[in-house]
Amino acid sequence: MRSTSHSPGPQARPILVSDALVWRKGRRNVLIAQGRIAAYDPAEPPPEALRIDGSGQVLLPGLVEAHTHLDKTLWGMGWRPNTAGPRLIDKIENERRVRREIGIDPERQSGRQVRLSVAKGSTLFRTHVDVDTECGLSGVEGVMRTREAHQAIMDMEIVAFPQSGLVTRPGTRELMDQALAMGADVVGGLDPCAIDRDPKQHLDIVFGLADRRGKPIDIHLHEPAELGGFSMEMIIERTQALGLQGRVTISHAFCLGMTDRSYARQLMEQLARERIAVMTHGAPSRPVPPVAECYEMGVVVCAGSDGIRDSWGPYGDGDMLERAMILGLRNNLRRDDEVEMALDVCTFGGARVMGREDYGLEVGCVADLVLLPAEAAAHAVVERPESRTVFKRGVIVARDGALV
Amino acid sequence: MRSTSHSPGPQARPILVSDALVWRKGRRNVLIAQGRIAAYDPAEPPPEALRIDGSGQVLLPGLVEAHTHLDKTLWGMGWRPNTAGPRLIDKIENERRVRREIGIDPERQSGRQVRLSVAKGSTLFRTHVDVDTECGLSGVEGVMRTREAHQAIMDMEIVAFPQSGLVTRPGTRELMDQALAMGADVVGGLDPCAIDRDPKQHLDIVFGLADRRGKPIDIHLHEPAELGGFSMEMIIERTQALGLQGRVTISHAFCLGMTDRSYARQLMEQLARERIAVMTHGAPSRPVPPVAECYEMGVVVCAGSDGIRDSWGPYGDGDMLERAMILGLRNNLRRDDEVEMALDVCTFGGARVMGREDYGLEVGCVADLVLLPAEAAAHAVVERPESRTVFKRGVIVARDGALV
Repeated sequence: MRSTSHSPGPQARPILVSDALVWRKGRRNVLIAQGRIAAYDPAEPPPEALRIDGSGQVLLPGLVEAHTHLDKTLWGMGWRPNTAGPRLIDKIENERRVRREIGIDPERQSGRQVRLSVAKGSTLFRTHVDVDTECGLSGVEGVMRTREAHQAIMDMEIVAFPQSGLVTRPGTRELMDQALAMGADVVGGLDPCAIDRDPKQHLDIVFGLADRRGKPIDIHLHEPAELGGFSMEMIIERTQALGLQGRVTISHAFCLGMTDRSYARQLMEQLARERIAVMTHGAPSRPVPPVAECYEMGVVVCAGSDGIRDSWGPYGDGDMLERAMILGLRNNLRRDDEVEMALDVCTFGGARVMGREDYGLEVGCVADLVLLPAEAAAHAVVERPESRTVFKRGVIVARDGALV
Repeated sequence: MRSTSHSPGPQARPILVSDALVWRKGRRNVLIAQGRIAAYDPAEPPPEALRIDGSGQVLLPGLVEAHTHLDKTLWGMGWRPNTAGPRLIDKIENERRVRREIGIDPERQSGRQVRLSVAKGSTLFRTHVDVDTECGLSGVEGVMRTREAHQAIMDMEIVAFPQSGLVTRPGTRELMDQALAMGADVVGGLDPCAIDRDPKQHLDIVFGLADRRGKPIDIHLHEPAELGGFSMEMIIERTQALGLQGRVTISHAFCLGMTDRSYARQLMEQLARERIAVMTHGAPSRPVPPVAECYEMGVVVCAGSDGIRDSWGPYGDGDMLERAMILGLRNNLRRDDEVEMALDVCTFGGARVMGREDYGLEVGCVADLVLLPAEAAAHAVVERPESRTVFKRGVIVARDGALV
């Protein structure tokens, strides 16, 4: 596993959250000190600790936005009627056009979305950022500046993402390599068959970059059913051959929702064996990886907002509790333990994919936390209360839906 | 068509909403008087009119909650962990048990949900209310009292709903008949094959009651694919035979989302011909009627929250704008005109099903309206702003998410 990139917060004042319902741990007093969960029910909390009444509130680990596109949200740019055509390629081409016409500044826009999401409780992000022969590295550079400027309130992984194709756009591979050299953390990829029409070369480039730069991989795979299954097999083969177990994520993985359940389960078995994770946003209009079946078979699942308010579609506001609700609705998760599985995807799942070993609610974990009024964790998911206190490395960074 | 049961409001003070973006009509000054939309851009508005600044706001017709279960929400009863089994029959049996054990008072609970929903902009409801040999008519009586007590802020149709079966529970038919005699407006039904295991007798009872009492019909049909298609055919046959065109709704109609698109389209053609409406809540975990295809083929579509926070499941808060969003996500509606189709389902669709001819935004329509901060109708759907001014028959009944 990668080592954590968390570092404890500044020597801020300790905080004692009293009588909170800590997820899976019951009602506890929680001492936060030196950026970490220092103790539960301390006998003698430090007298200088800031006291927060947690009664009537649930304490969750920070929400994890494990798949979004920070560089291209239109949030804050006024309402823009969406007129894109129905196919994936229509949306990709429409997006490049819109980007030219209205000037979507990656730094400004990623900053807007980060602040919006942190206020709603996300403390850790993985964002895909477009790299292509038109925009070059401007997206990666802009998002890196946003990361730098917001490092006190969140952590972020940047995926160099060849949205417009790798094989079909000569020069993109070199740009991807530069992006990785200058600070992108993850090698992205996209529909090796459907977009690049050359799955072997596409995946050889992606895995070649990862191997050479020692970086993990996160591939968008929208390809449906047996076509997606074929691409997934090729990803599995390369993961095994290069010893990249635990370093590869397949985003969307719609093919795992295919009708042929026997083939889908066979694929899931191989994902579990090679420790390849799956990212789902629970797309209500597409077949999706079945979350409960993935858990049962040992496949790690994380989730993200995908794009919010962008040229692809108007939905979303970066709230990972709403994402857990949508996962719950999509996967027919109704019992409390099932709803909590959706929440697990939106918290621990993403942290696992990003290798954050000191994430969570154990003593010693980094104090990335969300405190919010609810009677149970499942209640928090279905109610999505606006009033949230967000802690990053033990420091309060947002309250009542606004950054502090 | 049934005649409207709207009656204009009291001789309240006229209201002039200035410079609002009226859905599909552009930026207008709207004069509301004597419970109706009196004029657009009046040259000389009455000097005594209350003036409301509508700039930066969108004006929609009142949202329509066309399918819910007011008698059994647990809203306001504290969080209750859900432990029901996976099958439909598990949930029906679990519900009767929970009802006995914790005392779900239909009057109190329906009142809670009505007030919650009106504050979010719903001005017209159709609710299914359980009628069975255990609870008898207590549900219908309770919801009728709620209707009476809240008549100033909403209109409501009550469906006598045989949740626990009709054929398999002797005595239920007689109770349904009594419910209709005492004020229920619509005859309900439920999965003629899957629950009662006797589709002919089930449907003969439902259509017999409707024929005898002169009432419309609204049948829950969860049955999937070809099984649901078979039940739907039997409903269509009876609608035609009894001349009930325009008087029958099929709720859920999951079978219209079946894989055999040719058979599904054949069914939709027949629904359009017999003017049988479809209710969908856009269930993300099930096949659903495709909204755009229904519109294209002339099938009227309405929507509802279904149950909210009840023994069936924990989701929902009665917000029909969120329902429009879920319909949009489920049906992959992304362009503005497509998102507005989802909103049309949650407004005009329900009004059409309930035969409200003076519903809408034309001059002369009853002034059931929602005013809310948004830049476009589609923006209102994806943003779901909390601050909403709700008008019922020209009187402001809610503001900023709370009843006035």
